[in-house]
Amino acid sequence: MNTPGDTMPNTMVGKPSLPEKSSVSLSKQSQEFQKRILLIDQTIQQYLSTDGGEPAILYEAAHHLIKAGGKRLRSLITLLCCEAVGGDIARVLPITVAAELLQTASLIHDDIIDCDEIRRGVRTVHEKFGRDIALLAGDLLIAQAFRIIGEEGTPEMIAAMGTGGVRMAEGEAADLFMSPDHDDTFTKEHYLYMIERKTAAFMEEAAKIGAITGNATEAQKRALVEYGGCLGFAFQLRDDILDVEASQQVANKSTLSDLRLKRGNYPLVHALEVCTNKERHKCLAALTKGDYEVVLQIIEKYDAIQFTYKLAQSYVTQAKQALQDFGFQTQALLEQVADFTLVRDY
Amino acid sequence: MNTPGDTMPNTMVGKPSLPEKSSVSLSKQSQEFQKRILLIDQTIQQYLSTDGGEPAILYEAAHHLIKAGGKRLRSLITLLCCEAVGGDIARVLPITVAAELLQTASLIHDDIIDCDEIRRGVRTVHEKFGRDIALLAGDLLIAQAFRIIGEEGTPEMIAAMGTGGVRMAEGEAADLFMSPDHDDTFTKEHYLYMIERKTAAFMEEAAKIGAITGNATEAQKRALVEYGGCLGFAFQLRDDILDVEASQQVANKSTLSDLRLKRGNYPLVHALEVCTNKERHKCLAALTKGDYEVVLQIIEKYDAIQFTYKLAQSYVTQAKQALQDFGFQTQALLEQVADFTLVRDY
Repeated sequence: MNTPGDTMPNTMVGKPSLPEKSSVSLSKQSQEFQKRILLIDQTIQQYLSTDGGEPAILYEAAHHLIKAGGKRLRSLITLLCCEAVGGDIARVLPITVAAELLQTASLIHDDIIDCDEIRRGVRTVHEKFGRDIALLAGDLLIAQAFRIIGEEGTPEMIAAMGTGGVRMAEGEAADLFMSPDHDDTFTKEHYLYMIERKTAAFMEEAAKIGAITGNATEAQKRALVEYGGCLGFAFQLRDDILDVEASQQVANKSTLSDLRLKRGNYPLVHALEVCTNKERHKCLAALTKGDYEVVLQIIEKYDAIQFTYKLAQSYVTQAKQALQDFGFQTQALLEQVADFTLVRDY
Repeated sequence: MNTPGDTMPNTMVGKPSLPEKSSVSLSKQSQEFQKRILLIDQTIQQYLSTDGGEPAILYEAAHHLIKAGGKRLRSLITLLCCEAVGGDIARVLPITVAAELLQTASLIHDDIIDCDEIRRGVRTVHEKFGRDIALLAGDLLIAQAFRIIGEEGTPEMIAAMGTGGVRMAEGEAADLFMSPDHDDTFTKEHYLYMIERKTAAFMEEAAKIGAITGNATEAQKRALVEYGGCLGFAFQLRDDILDVEASQQVANKSTLSDLRLKRGNYPLVHALEVCTNKERHKCLAALTKGDYEVVLQIIEKYDAIQFTYKLAQSYVTQAKQALQDFGFQTQALLEQVADFTLVRDY
């Protein structure tokens, strides 16, 4: 996949206004999504209800975030990519559960690392159940996901999920080392490398395992994987915008988690690359002191949110382009999912 | 598998003397082991040398314990169980690497939970690289193990490894809740439940994936899995003995990790079950205060180490019995491995 972030789009001049945000979830946008997400939720529910074990608290911890909801975006992509090539929904549904379990495992471990307290409107697993149980709950979910694929999938899917897991761990680790305290890593280049692994890889794998389940041809598979990867970039960039955008209005520190944790955030990294050297030093000092108003002013001054939005938009365009010429049965829905990543505000 | 610990062997009277310990590793016991462990080590080495990725420190952390050595016991069992049924060594070697990676992942996460500082004579991964990188290094190794099986193995192996992972997480979690502070869980019954998952399950899976690679029949597979499970129990009981035995001589606190962490330890749990109520209270109070001399006296008074040794011995006997009547090509070696678990002192 090309990474549009490597070169600056010529169109990025002026101050384009951002689109209206949408707090409407995908499932409320159309019946087509609603019925699929319901199907995924029912399958997950069914799996969880028969998935007992001891100690009960380990399973409670493992199920905590899954029950709290979530967008089910990865599962939906797996399902839609299987349907895209005429695959059997009944065959792919257990696979979507595996995708959801793996995704949840990575969130649980991620929250431990980031010391996050809230996720999906509930306390994070380590906050509620303690760090040790949270770590094991993540391991349990990974093992369960692979068990499902072992029972319902193919070796190719396993290899794809294994590769996705490797890249995700690499991305998470790269994220740990990305800090404004280390000038050489706090760059857009490094940031895109990081999210390519941390977010895009897993979306790619979600698309790939759906495509494999549907017996896609190699060319179809490549197109759907390209779609998934681009979607992952757009998704992460939108996340970054949401992190600093809401904050621009109210400087509500609870939403500025990237700044607080001194983690990568595309608007911030962009602003630091284009501002003057004096502003850069001022901004870095402000980050250290926790004076986020100064940081947000520099992000505002250099239109960094609009720049990031345009980049996300170019990934969405690339995602849609990847789908052309294949006559995918769910092409319109996949395109709507891509558009959704740009307007979602949750 | 029957759990011999459920019923007391009649032979457990008097004070049988323990056998001579052996600091000789399996590979030094015979050329047959030496050449196989060399083969496993070479394959692991080859895998690690081509297994690059970024950030480099993540891979360094993931490889740290593997390079420090280890008994390669699980890999050896996988190899011997494949050979037992005439399986192809070249086909099983990559699978042994997967077993080693998974095993290492569980050790890394386990050490985080137990706050252990030393493993295999080197600093633990979280001590050397920090907790966050250690957590991700474990996740990386799990993903790599599954990727290998996806590329080289079969769905049945994945399901087996997934099941092993689930039981291991359950066992680890059960271990967390096993404490002398909670009388209802600090029992031999609970302890055997816990190690059945924490240690035996993984040995079973190591045997199973070897057997599957060698195209074992269902009956052969069951026998080898039974062997692996019994070996796991014997192995863990020997670990427990080593933890309190060396300490009986010198009360060297650094070896009393089970007591220090208030974790399950079979000799301790047995002593607490058979001693008087007064002694039990005295022993529990001593554990809380860290007065380990008192605890070791009670273990000594009730011959708890000898009792544990006899139990381990009965698992070894059961492991060997499971192998009978199949004409396994590596039967003698598998029996020697079983005997080794009783004499090893590392």
